[in-house]
Amino acid sequence: MQSKAKGAPRRVRVDLGERSYDILIGSGLLSQTAEYLRPLKLGKHGVIITDTNVEPRYAGPLREALGKGGITVEVLSVPAGEGSKSLRQADRIFEKLPSLGLDRQSFVIALGGGVVGDLAGFVAASYLRGLALVQMPTSLLAQVDSSVGGKVGVNLPQGKNLVGAFYQPRLVLADTDTLATLPARELRSGFAEVIKHGAIRDAGFFEWLEREYKQVLALHPDAVARVVRRCCEIKAEVVSADERESGLRAILNFGHTLGHAMESLSEYVGLLHGEGISMGMCCGARLSVKRAGLSEEEAGRVGDLIAASGLPTRLGGSFKLEELLAAARLDKKARNSKLRFVLLKRLGEAVVSDAVTDADFVEVMDVCR
Amino acid sequence: MQSKAKGAPRRVRVDLGERSYDILIGSGLLSQTAEYLRPLKLGKHGVIITDTNVEPRYAGPLREALGKGGITVEVLSVPAGEGSKSLRQADRIFEKLPSLGLDRQSFVIALGGGVVGDLAGFVAASYLRGLALVQMPTSLLAQVDSSVGGKVGVNLPQGKNLVGAFYQPRLVLADTDTLATLPARELRSGFAEVIKHGAIRDAGFFEWLEREYKQVLALHPDAVARVVRRCCEIKAEVVSADERESGLRAILNFGHTLGHAMESLSEYVGLLHGEGISMGMCCGARLSVKRAGLSEEEAGRVGDLIAASGLPTRLGGSFKLEELLAAARLDKKARNSKLRFVLLKRLGEAVVSDAVTDADFVEVMDVCR
Repeated sequence: MQSKAKGAPRRVRVDLGERSYDILIGSGLLSQTAEYLRPLKLGKHGVIITDTNVEPRYAGPLREALGKGGITVEVLSVPAGEGSKSLRQADRIFEKLPSLGLDRQSFVIALGGGVVGDLAGFVAASYLRGLALVQMPTSLLAQVDSSVGGKVGVNLPQGKNLVGAFYQPRLVLADTDTLATLPARELRSGFAEVIKHGAIRDAGFFEWLEREYKQVLALHPDAVARVVRRCCEIKAEVVSADERESGLRAILNFGHTLGHAMESLSEYVGLLHGEGISMGMCCGARLSVKRAGLSEEEAGRVGDLIAASGLPTRLGGSFKLEELLAAARLDKKARNSKLRFVLLKRLGEAVVSDAVTDADFVEVMDVCR
Repeated sequence: MQSKAKGAPRRVRVDLGERSYDILIGSGLLSQTAEYLRPLKLGKHGVIITDTNVEPRYAGPLREALGKGGITVEVLSVPAGEGSKSLRQADRIFEKLPSLGLDRQSFVIALGGGVVGDLAGFVAASYLRGLALVQMPTSLLAQVDSSVGGKVGVNLPQGKNLVGAFYQPRLVLADTDTLATLPARELRSGFAEVIKHGAIRDAGFFEWLEREYKQVLALHPDAVARVVRRCCEIKAEVVSADERESGLRAILNFGHTLGHAMESLSEYVGLLHGEGISMGMCCGARLSVKRAGLSEEEAGRVGDLIAASGLPTRLGGSFKLEELLAAARLDKKARNSKLRFVLLKRLGEAVVSDAVTDADFVEVMDVCR
């Protein structure tokens, strides 16, 4: 259900001093890209980094849209999927860039979902010690979460996001039309991050999601625009307060310690990020009842919304407890190898806690199977 | 001629707001490392990145010195030489780090010359999105130049330093005793950067070098300490004014456009960095006479000091002019593929210039053969 209405885009500001930038959200933005880039005063030559799913749909139209503004771009494409968030793909791109005639005024456009945004962001952060980065997220997950906030990087076999940087984009352009071509499972995976934003920071938004989740998943334009904007506002607020995750920002990792552990153990095959964190949030809600005073009723609502959206709530038998525990310890938010979890005190309020013991973990994992 | 005198170290401050740090310069610092790290409040576990030349001499004593302060470290070593400043070696280190039990409070010590500092700095900048970095330069080149200022990175086959970051260390510890074990040719290579600092920023220091260069190359302790301190002061001043090289900082690249081009063309084999920039500075001085008003007399003094120090002043026949020109254009300081050179208006005053034409380049290259 692609909306053709072309109103003025919604604008969310990420306030980070000299690294501040806008997130523009709306329908039909892609065809206006040259206009939105103009105020940034970038060079006239750049590179689009995308993947094999997104390239055939959007790389051509984007190149054309930029051409109208006198901007020329090369297109580099990686295989679709989490496997491309690797040092190997980063190196492959690094080795292609010198022949493209880029200079320090050149820019990188990350056109795609979370994998492309993180990979292209790391490349932009590192090539010539930093080129201007424009995020053009085409998945719900990337539009509501990963394209905003400046975390970029790649995975190692031992864990997610172990190599990367804090590197803010100069602009985020979220064209909600691109969500129409997203497979349903990818859409639901992105919706897991939407639920997270409500759970950690805005009980009213969570309630609205409980009522309207079907509208969002059916891509009703107003519902989608509202969801993307509200999530970006929440993320912008948190990131502005704590860019480099010395405190508050860690709450964005609700569900992620376990989610990452599961993704790592499944070697990024067969489990989408949003599916991992859905199970992680369900376990997180149980741990929150035990260690942060969350009510049983609210913990139940977290699980219910996840389940209603078609996302997994239970781990199933495929993960060994000891392996999950070891992977959770390796999570880079861990300090001195202690378990560190984001817990909910109530819907809309999250805390970072070191209070979860191995015994709690084992008990809750058992319940969540 | 290793000095055993252990006075208080000289201290140079690099003033960069919340990224400010000290450079400590002196004899016998290595054995006191734990004490100098204490004010930084780092974790108790880190990793030393070094190379196969430096490791047998200094990794053991450093590990021991840290142990006295209750700090444990692992040692990772790369083959000595410019070839290790590569994505391949960076990846090799990234893949070893997860098994070392590091967390975000852990730190990286770069123990070695310029290659180790740049490589380890890039690893520190990127692992877990940034670990604390301590530079412990053991070569003259690293002590007077590359360990200070936060430029870190690796080479690509197509050019030097094409992948990297601006990432400031938390501390630089320059133990001048380590220079005693440096091969004479490496020492001279570092001295090229010393000459550069005088030429671009301090005519008085340049004159002092003309008188005292033999004392420096003989590692007379007072002369060495003076040279390291003055170069660090100059570099600190320039970097503080322009951390990310949007203006002034570019003057530090005097001799480097050509030097890098030659290093690139020789594939980093057989030509030391200081040798490349020595030839680059000689050509730069000639171009400066032509395009920036440098007097013949002062241009001659630049060449004379370089020659007197035993550094090369002429390109010889091994470089093809067209290849040099193409490589100089690829230099990442180039804008829109125009040639960009740092020129001297007079000794002690440098400017960045786009005035050099292809014809100038060809003419001067011809003279400098």
